[in-house]
Amino acid sequence: MPLPTPRRMSWIACLPEFAAGRDTPEAFLDRCLANLETFEPQVGAFVHIEIAAARAQAQAATARWRAGAPLSRIDGMPVGIKDLIETADMPTQCGSPVYEGWRSERDAASVLALRQAGAVILGKTVTTEFAAKVPRGTRNPWDPARTPGGSSSGSAAAVGCGMLPVALGTQVIGSLLRPASYCGAYAFKPTFGAINRGGSHDALSQSAHGPIAATLADAWVTAREIADRAGGDPGYPGLLGPAELPAVRRPACVAVIETPGWKVADAAARALFEQAVAKLAADGVKVINRANHRGVALLETMLERAGYVSHALVNYESVWPLNAYRARDPGKLSGFLRDRLVEAEKMTPAEYRALLTERTAARAAHAALAGDCDALLTLCATGVAPLGIEATGDTVFNIPASYLGAPALNLPAFMLDGLPLGLQAIGPVDGDAGLFSVAGWIDAALASGVPGA
Amino acid sequence: MPLPTPRRMSWIACLPEFAAGRDTPEAFLDRCLANLETFEPQVGAFVHIEIAAARAQAQAATARWRAGAPLSRIDGMPVGIKDLIETADMPTQCGSPVYEGWRSERDAASVLALRQAGAVILGKTVTTEFAAKVPRGTRNPWDPARTPGGSSSGSAAAVGCGMLPVALGTQVIGSLLRPASYCGAYAFKPTFGAINRGGSHDALSQSAHGPIAATLADAWVTAREIADRAGGDPGYPGLLGPAELPAVRRPACVAVIETPGWKVADAAARALFEQAVAKLAADGVKVINRANHRGVALLETMLERAGYVSHALVNYESVWPLNAYRARDPGKLSGFLRDRLVEAEKMTPAEYRALLTERTAARAAHAALAGDCDALLTLCATGVAPLGIEATGDTVFNIPASYLGAPALNLPAFMLDGLPLGLQAIGPVDGDAGLFSVAGWIDAALASGVPGA
Repeated sequence: MPLPTPRRMSWIACLPEFAAGRDTPEAFLDRCLANLETFEPQVGAFVHIEIAAARAQAQAATARWRAGAPLSRIDGMPVGIKDLIETADMPTQCGSPVYEGWRSERDAASVLALRQAGAVILGKTVTTEFAAKVPRGTRNPWDPARTPGGSSSGSAAAVGCGMLPVALGTQVIGSLLRPASYCGAYAFKPTFGAINRGGSHDALSQSAHGPIAATLADAWVTAREIADRAGGDPGYPGLLGPAELPAVRRPACVAVIETPGWKVADAAARALFEQAVAKLAADGVKVINRANHRGVALLETMLERAGYVSHALVNYESVWPLNAYRARDPGKLSGFLRDRLVEAEKMTPAEYRALLTERTAARAAHAALAGDCDALLTLCATGVAPLGIEATGDTVFNIPASYLGAPALNLPAFMLDGLPLGLQAIGPVDGDAGLFSVAGWIDAALASGVPGA
Repeated sequence: MPLPTPRRMSWIACLPEFAAGRDTPEAFLDRCLANLETFEPQVGAFVHIEIAAARAQAQAATARWRAGAPLSRIDGMPVGIKDLIETADMPTQCGSPVYEGWRSERDAASVLALRQAGAVILGKTVTTEFAAKVPRGTRNPWDPARTPGGSSSGSAAAVGCGMLPVALGTQVIGSLLRPASYCGAYAFKPTFGAINRGGSHDALSQSAHGPIAATLADAWVTAREIADRAGGDPGYPGLLGPAELPAVRRPACVAVIETPGWKVADAAARALFEQAVAKLAADGVKVINRANHRGVALLETMLERAGYVSHALVNYESVWPLNAYRARDPGKLSGFLRDRLVEAEKMTPAEYRALLTERTAARAAHAALAGDCDALLTLCATGVAPLGIEATGDTVFNIPASYLGAPALNLPAFMLDGLPLGLQAIGPVDGDAGLFSVAGWIDAALASGVPGA
């Protein structure tokens, strides 16, 4: 049976209704479950789901809202957790036979924070094998013949079609923003370190946790509620900014960065992006680029090797625990990961250090731009979700923000051949709140191409 | 039965004998096991031990040495692993009922590196509860009526009496250097990030892994063999320096820092330290201190609150996973940890950020001193190991190096009333190798007061 057109479903938009007693978390969950019933059989966003427990929690939250005493703005909000992140009451399987049926019996820091805020953990969403490249069968709700992207495949697919208003994901290369682009959802990859990764299996030097969400408000408020309770990674300041969605602000200047992705992007995708930039310029936003600004040209030069360096860093940092899993049972790792491990083991500490230094230099070039523009803009993917579910698409446009440790957003601003495509906005490190301000303005100026909210 | 005088036992000192075929890893292990038989019943350094497996591994290593093809300089070396660090073939219990009988079924990054180098994991050494304050019964091999210190209690006790040449420990406040001082062993707390902590339960912003060892050479070579294979923490350069123990070098200048510990140190301990400094000065080493050098005075000022700030940071960063364990079963946490958790939960992200900033400023003051002196010297504890095993002693002298993220060594240089007491040398961040050079010279100049090697 053909699927209906996916629509996102915002939790934050319902807050006035909850407060007024005209809507309830229970009813909201029912709407999510209706979408789940429609889409999940063909999409496969979840690897584990606990409907009865979720209903009971939504009921409790409903009672708190009725009593005028919700635990937080997300009390009762259904949320999905990427299956790389530990949950006390559900298995954490990391998309790998190594972790089949494994239960840590503890909540990750972010998950416990969500529970403390009253959020309802509906289930675990599909991740590729250890958040790398090998997919685990999830399909795109816009077209089940297409990939939802990865590695946060299930989180993007579930939010894109309103099974959930928010789902947590992780990104070390392109795992939040690209699937959000393919599935027509917002995604927020915070500044490196801004959300505590304790209890998640992505202890890598450019990995970050963030929400895939129905709206910018759902993304911001969820990230905020987590960070207020769980903080950032040890030694990092954690997410900075106000409790509510930062007020919309017209950017004075944006920098267009083409990145190495530009050369391989679809012509139609590039055209949509260029139209959007022209619209912003027509609205009075100054646009700088490699041709007219030396700082942008320098950053683009520093980003030329970002893909190579990012992958090399991540592979080196992934030697453990993959070598420990290989020691136990090599047959439980994919051939892809086994080969990558053998390659990574050839790298020396000195080579790793040289690559870290190169990344640090790129970050300095990005920081130097912060005074000259409010955000960097680029595409979020080379085009719409590709056909087939054996691969998760090209990460090339997602690498820069991961490499720079910078906050980034996917805005589901475009539609192309009936499929969503995202605009990416990247802010300065620790400028997450400011990024939301200008991205909110840009999103409204472009009038979202993807239905939802 | 009274225990004999503890003696450390160096592995590295035996390398020429192994190479010449006059000694073997099997015979070395037998000597360790003889000491274990003598001391362990009264000391209780181990929480888990695998003698048969260790013998088999030592036998295999012996064959490799005989064939002239050892895997590394530590092929066949018996080593103990603090029970906070995961091991594939033994439980990891973190000194807590929460982890009773728990098996991760994977080796931590450092443990796998040790195995790849051929080291023989003899057992898991006792840690206090989650490496905090509540001890687990280990006694000091110099006097079983006294604490061995903590939290790396078992590692220090085992190395101090030659049950092992090396054992891994961790230090976030004072958990490597203080027990080494009390037990008469060398200890090396590397620069923050220098040794990969993957698979260990101490993901805190000033925690580091390091060896407690029979000699400086055992410490350096072990750290080097681990770091060569496992690298540092993700995003950090890892341990810098040569493969072999850095050559001894007379320091041009050392800075004496009194730290907040000075006021509470035993007069006899202070006198021993002052005699040692006088000896260095007589040997031509320039000595600077708060009275004659503004940089030292500034650093001492910045260290006045190091204890308060370190504990507050660590407590905030420990909210997770302790809150997850409390959610499961509060009865499995000590009253001490439960109380500490409640206190830590009151801290806001803004307060945490302010304390991080304060620590960063102290680190800058320390970095500024690097050009003016080769090392900072101070005591490693307020005195010898205190009587009683209900507490693990005063951490006050260990806090500065942890707080500064700087490399530090305990040199078992003094004896007081028949008990060991350590001299502490602290180097600049990433100056681990240089610290070994000057500490080696100092150690020889003072002629170690504690028998061993």
